[in-house]
Amino acid sequence: GYSMNVMESAIAWEEFRLNGDGLIPVVVQDYRTDQVLMLAYMNEEAFQMTLRTGKMTYWSRSRKELWVKGLTSGHFQYVRSLSADCDKDTILARVSQVGAACHTGEISCFFNELVKKQYDETNPRKVFEDVYGVI
Amino acid sequence: GYSMNVMESAIAWEEFRLNGDGLIPVVVQDYRTDQVLMLAYMNEEAFQMTLRTGKMTYWSRSRKELWVKGLTSGHFQYVRSLSADCDKDTILARVSQVGAACHTGEISCFFNELVKKQYDETNPRKVFEDVYGVI
Repeated sequence: GYSMNVMESAIAWEEFRLNGDGLIPVVVQDYRTDQVLMLAYMNEEAFQMTLRTGKMTYWSRSRKELWVKGLTSGHFQYVRSLSADCDKDTILARVSQVGAACHTGEISCFFNELVKKQYDETNPRKVFEDVYGVI
Repeated sequence: GYSMNVMESAIAWEEFRLNGDGLIPVVVQDYRTDQVLMLAYMNEEAFQMTLRTGKMTYWSRSRKELWVKGLTSGHFQYVRSLSADCDKDTILARVSQVGAACHTGEISCFFNELVKKQYDETNPRKVFEDVYGVI
């Protein structure tokens, strides 16, 4: 089950490089399926509350308020791991997603396909997987 | 192999909602492994060049110039698919990554672990996978 222990971050908030709005973007990925669910933003309060509660908490840029993801929908995101990138200006959150991440009801917010490249499937690993799926 | 046909986006640049810098963030994911590799930004020129060449092209905020990923390192990212999120302010790119995505030599830029949650592995799917790995 989920423990409610406060998590301590290996990197302090002060070490992050914030964008022009004083926020840091957070890429949110389902830790089971590896699906990318959404991109959101944190200020320091959101970051600290995420660590304290284990539930992903963002800064809503449209509503200009703290946003505990799932508080109204029930679709909470429980923290599995948080990582920062090489220049510490982006966070990757791997989460246990309850229900759908998107307010539209879609699992992931990235449902608007722009382009998809056609290609011959000669990738050995994919061919192996296709064959493996049959046997 | 890779075809060099120009791709046409289902959503025009004008429909995207840009950030304060006139850019759109792009989450970059390996299409084979589903690993999240990096977050970068595009302006319109970068977006159009990505469609035209099939190679991920960004706007470098630090160098303030167009950045064809891999042009100096050889670590190109070939477009597999591009999607926009529900409010069209973020792009998800699934790519075929040549070599490492990060300039440090790491596969992914997200190598700075902040927190990792301890939990009992009672998730049926994971337990199944663990067992499956043994048999």
